Amino acid sequence: MALPVSFLSDFGHRDEFVGVVHGVIYRLSPESRIIDITHGIPAGDVRAGALALTRAIQYLPQGIVLGVVDPGVGTARRAIAAATDFGYFVGPDNGLLSPAVAMMGGATSINSIENPEVMIPGPGATFQGRDLFAPAAALLASGEAMLDDLGPPVDPASVMPLMLPLPKVELNLAIGEVWWVDVYGNVETNIGPDDLMVTGARPGRQVMVRIGATEHEGRWVETFGDVGDGELAIHVDSAGLVALAVRGGRADEEMNAAPGMAVTFQPAP
Amino acid sequence: MALPVSFLSDFGHRDEFVGVVHGVIYRLSPESRIIDITHGIPAGDVRAGALALTRAIQYLPQGIVLGVVDPGVGTARRAIAAATDFGYFVGPDNGLLSPAVAMMGGATSINSIENPEVMIPGPGATFQGRDLFAPAAALLASGEAMLDDLGPPVDPASVMPLMLPLPKVELNLAIGEVWWVDVYGNVETNIGPDDLMVTGARPGRQVMVRIGATEHEGRWVETFGDVGDGELAIHVDSAGLVALAVRGGRADEEMNAAPGMAVTFQPAP
Amino acid sequence: MALPVSFLSDFGHRDEFVGVVHGVIYRLSPESRIIDITHGIPAGDVRAGALALTRAIQYLPQGIVLGVVDPGVGTARRAIAAATDFGYFVGPDNGLLSPAVAMMGGATSINSIENPEVMIPGPGATFQGRDLFAPAAALLASGEAMLDDLGPPVDPASVMPLMLPLPKVELNLAIGEVWWVDVYGNVETNIGPDDLMVTGARPGRQVMVRIGATEHEGRWVETFGDVGDGELAIHVDSAGLVALAVRGGRADEEMNAAPGMAVTFQPAP
Repeated sequence: MALPVSFLSDFGHRDEFVGVVHGVIYRLSPESRIIDITHGIPAGDVRAGALALTRAIQYLPQGIVLGVVDPGVGTARRAIAAATDFGYFVGPDNGLLSPAVAMMGGATSINSIENPEVMIPGPGATFQGRDLFAPAAALLASGEAMLDDLGPPVDPASVMPLMLPLPKVELNLAIGEVWWVDVYGNVETNIGPDDLMVTGARPGRQVMVRIGATEHEGRWVETFGDVGDGELAIHVDSAGLVALAVRGGRADEEMNAAPGMAVTFQPAP
Repeated sequence: MALPVSFLSDFGHRDEFVGVVHGVIYRLSPESRIIDITHGIPAGDVRAGALALTRAIQYLPQGIVLGVVDPGVGTARRAIAAATDFGYFVGPDNGLLSPAVAMMGGATSINSIENPEVMIPGPGATFQGRDLFAPAAALLASGEAMLDDLGPPVDPASVMPLMLPLPKVELNLAIGEVWWVDVYGNVETNIGPDDLMVTGARPGRQVMVRIGATEHEGRWVETFGDVGDGELAIHVDSAGLVALAVRGGRADEEMNAAPGMAVTFQPAP
Repeated sequence: MALPVSFLSDFGHRDEFVGVVHGVIYRLSPESRIIDITHGIPAGDVRAGALALTRAIQYLPQGIVLGVVDPGVGTARRAIAAATDFGYFVGPDNGLLSPAVAMMGGATSINSIENPEVMIPGPGATFQGRDLFAPAAALLASGEAMLDDLGPPVDPASVMPLMLPLPKVELNLAIGEVWWVDVYGNVETNIGPDDLMVTGARPGRQVMVRIGATEHEGRWVETFGDVGDGELAIHVDSAGLVALAVRGGRADEEMNAAPGMAVTFQPAP
């Protein structure tokens, strides 16, 4: 029985890249279902891709994860496949897969994809999603290849980690950064509810939030529905992190927030 | 045999929301095919979602319809599943599903989705597409759950209808509104060809159209192909409603038209 | 066994058009897998659709290709289905399918889709993707219809070709045009590496590029990785054509380039 392939990239939906990768997988593993996690990662944004994969991974079927956000295609960065208890992760060795692999308990082994026999010979060296990653993922999915068929094992310690900033708490101040802004304008931070508790903030009470030069007061609630229209809701979002929402509005616009900006929380006086 | 799931939302394709819902459905009902009706409904626009579903429904396979356009997530609005002759409809009780359910002959029974056993426990209360609607849809699709397993039956009369404005005809004037503007700039109204006939307009003849402050004359034709380049074609569109198109151009720009604007038709003098 | 259907269009992902076509195919050929090549072709841009299909075709599974970029819907242009060694191509007779059919060795027979029995009766005459092309593709995919069931054979010589501009070389100047700009801003031309060699340019050496009024010098390399950050890389892309990339940047912005613009290459002095 062929394994399903869950596929994330920054290919977008304007070009035929996603379709071509689907075609390659279908030809090599016709029984594999393909789940498009998203292809809307901003071009080349490895961190955004890694975070999206981390949020999604526990809801995906066991099998293959194919991740292609690869600004270094054509450089010396390796192509890797990692075995985990969840299944196989296939993608560039640039940190994209690292947090999700860690969430799944880490890799039991990692191989470099180098064997020309598992690649599709094609013109150019720029579409490795098509020529290298998709065939490797499909051959693992169909069971036709094992990790060692793809290339030599690599030292797990040599694989690129993803440096994710940790939040910190100083007295009554939780200090972190904006992680993600979703399609509705909700603003996720890298701060957890435990961090917020340490500052003295409490569910149901008012909290001050500062993002860049913008400061607002909001209430720590369970969902948007617990505040009035146009009011700021500080809540634990679907990934378990502290996030901002404006009921009937967009928190990103209200707070002038974008991924990467510094954010602080403290209890309202 | 597992039923297919037809899925419509306002999730867009930038975030991983659509992929996560696919993952949840796959894990609970791996044999179900998933048809993405569209995920491009404007964020929170229940009416646009309901209209898109109404246009699509008769072309979808019998099975499950999963609709998630849910600006009230986190409020007291219910989550419901409705049984019809077509199959099951799953989504928020906010009017999104109502017109399509009505088109399929109405619901034979409707239950509130409340049973925690059919939900996925997850952090936060904001991604019910993942934690509540997708599992309910998948369990109905696989046959593992019946309506009564999801929660208590509700009075169909208590379910939120969708208030859709009806067109009216006064003397030689058909009065309605813009329903939808598609990717090509075609402008659909809520006026039917019968309404137009009552005004005295006739296929093949010239008709005056006013949208907001913009007035134009066009010919009532079968398709764009029956008018010259750049000319306005008034025609019955693929949903059976009176619509405007400009051959080789965009009717929305020509008419400054957007959904919700008032529109009138009358025979040209 | 049902054949897969590879589907390309300019429908975009905002409206429900793609989902409706999936629904129609599923109802008529439930065992057929559907591969979405792309639906991001600019509205009505037959040439862009034909080029995308040409780049994708050899990576798609044998079966059915359904292509719908059809600005002439509603005019006298025919709907056709062509048999090739690859499988069947279904779409409008406007040149969209012609280059891909030629790449697959040409058509062994071509029929006009005219038989009302293979169409879905629907209101309006504007959504032939739903009412005509999808059913024809699905019936061929399921094996329920043969070409002759769709309508009468047509003279292959009467089918619309796609006029694609050929590059030319004059002395040390390769003259062509911009073919495509992808999501990363990479600029593909219609010039091949052989043309470039004829000008005296050589891999590893500097080349002058002019697009419109913008002139830049770059190096002919294998991939982006062979130039420094912000530098222009002239390379053979994944379709085998000469293309421009800027490492860590966007070549389209650097060169003010858009599809259709004139481009010349010559060896740097």
